[in-house]
Amino acid sequence: MTSRLLLEYDGTRFAGWARQPGQRTVQEAVEHALRTILREDDLTLTVAGRTDAGVHAWGQVCSYEHEAVDPLRLNALLPGDVAVLDCNPAPAGFDARRDALSRTYCYRVLHRRARSVWLAQRAHWYGWELDHEALSACARALAGTHDFRAFTPSETHHTRFERDVHAAEWRMDGDLLEFWITADSFMRHMNRVLVGTMLEVAGARRSLEDFVALLDGRPRADAAATAPPYGLALAAVAYAAEGSTIEGWTACDEGAADQ
Amino acid sequence: MTSRLLLEYDGTRFAGWARQPGQRTVQEAVEHALRTILREDDLTLTVAGRTDAGVHAWGQVCSYEHEAVDPLRLNALLPGDVAVLDCNPAPAGFDARRDALSRTYCYRVLHRRARSVWLAQRAHWYGWELDHEALSACARALAGTHDFRAFTPSETHHTRFERDVHAAEWRMDGDLLEFWITADSFMRHMNRVLVGTMLEVAGARRSLEDFVALLDGRPRADAAATAPPYGLALAAVAYAAEGSTIEGWTACDEGAADQ
Repeated sequence: MTSRLLLEYDGTRFAGWARQPGQRTVQEAVEHALRTILREDDLTLTVAGRTDAGVHAWGQVCSYEHEAVDPLRLNALLPGDVAVLDCNPAPAGFDARRDALSRTYCYRVLHRRARSVWLAQRAHWYGWELDHEALSACARALAGTHDFRAFTPSETHHTRFERDVHAAEWRMDGDLLEFWITADSFMRHMNRVLVGTMLEVAGARRSLEDFVALLDGRPRADAAATAPPYGLALAAVAYAAEGSTIEGWTACDEGAADQ
Repeated sequence: MTSRLLLEYDGTRFAGWARQPGQRTVQEAVEHALRTILREDDLTLTVAGRTDAGVHAWGQVCSYEHEAVDPLRLNALLPGDVAVLDCNPAPAGFDARRDALSRTYCYRVLHRRARSVWLAQRAHWYGWELDHEALSACARALAGTHDFRAFTPSETHHTRFERDVHAAEWRMDGDLLEFWITADSFMRHMNRVLVGTMLEVAGARRSLEDFVALLDGRPRADAAATAPPYGLALAAVAYAAEGSTIEGWTACDEGAADQ
């Protein structure tokens, strides 16, 4: 019996998604709540996007091999910085990681002089000059397939560095700048190094041509510093609607897409 | 020399705006930061809207008799849950409370089954049935001048209970329902009792006619319970643009109106 969870969490006080001994992680918190309710000691979650320490999620998806549980019961056991939005039966063998067609992330930059009470730890507060048009030009250059090895730490388990970017854009609304990107998958730190490097282009400290050249498989040292984790959120995960035999499935997809 | 401050704060951990011995209040925090920078021991803030414990502000305005200070210097001294957005010279004698033409408040209701990580303590989480059309009908009934004594505690210093509501509406965006109201001024708890009572109408536990009758000066006991404080935020305060002789003034007004 396979089930599917839709989750949101504030990453501020978590050491990331993945279980680590002695650390407070999202995986540990959610597995603990599920195990308690299901009285099942060896339940393990498979996740669509492993987020790093401090990174948030508005629409994280995971799967596990056991029956679905009422979200209200799970939320009553979970700490306030993680909540289950949906929990539904999934087709046999559904795997939240392997079956995901794409992930969508959003990186928020608060571009103003005064810090914010409301977006503290939920956006990257940035007070320097930024050329909005340069940000948009960078985003346009990202569409398509590129070799992103410049945007992930050199010490990596990856052997293939190409990723397919389905869509990328900066949305500007007053002093809140949001970088939205959808790709088949992402490597560690990839979005944060992309943002750090785009902010250099927008601040006239790097040329657009240099940014474009980085997309061709340059070494990590050629790109900029990693932007802080708290600006980043996993916004949504997309799955094929076909093959769905269970009613909850589509509702779950729509929930994620709404984020 | 008169100055004007534009502030935002998260009311969760404050015992409200007004100074109280032994309590953590917004007034005490901001006055302490100003006194430290200005080396002035008897500086006192005059505020446009005295908010209760737990109530937030997106665009609070206050005035004081001393020179203006760089917001960055103030924010460096202030705790993370309060921030100064603007601090500008104001016309001599400007009084943030007396000169305010109107205050705008927003009460947010999160209408869904699962609790929210992002809006915890920033919206009233409400899981029961709600008739959106009934909420809108209540808001329409609010426009104009009414006797609001049913919506404030019986133990009160007020002698005049009429208030002029300039605008009131419910804005629905998915599961987030926002009640926006602008009036010349508000009495203690007035918005929260209004919301508590409108939720009863929307839940078919009270008729629209009954709600309308309450606007005619009925006793407090006839209205519903006070909705929780954390759904409420002082969104903006409006002042007359005329009489402005100083450049910062208009910028400040626009800042507040943008909230």
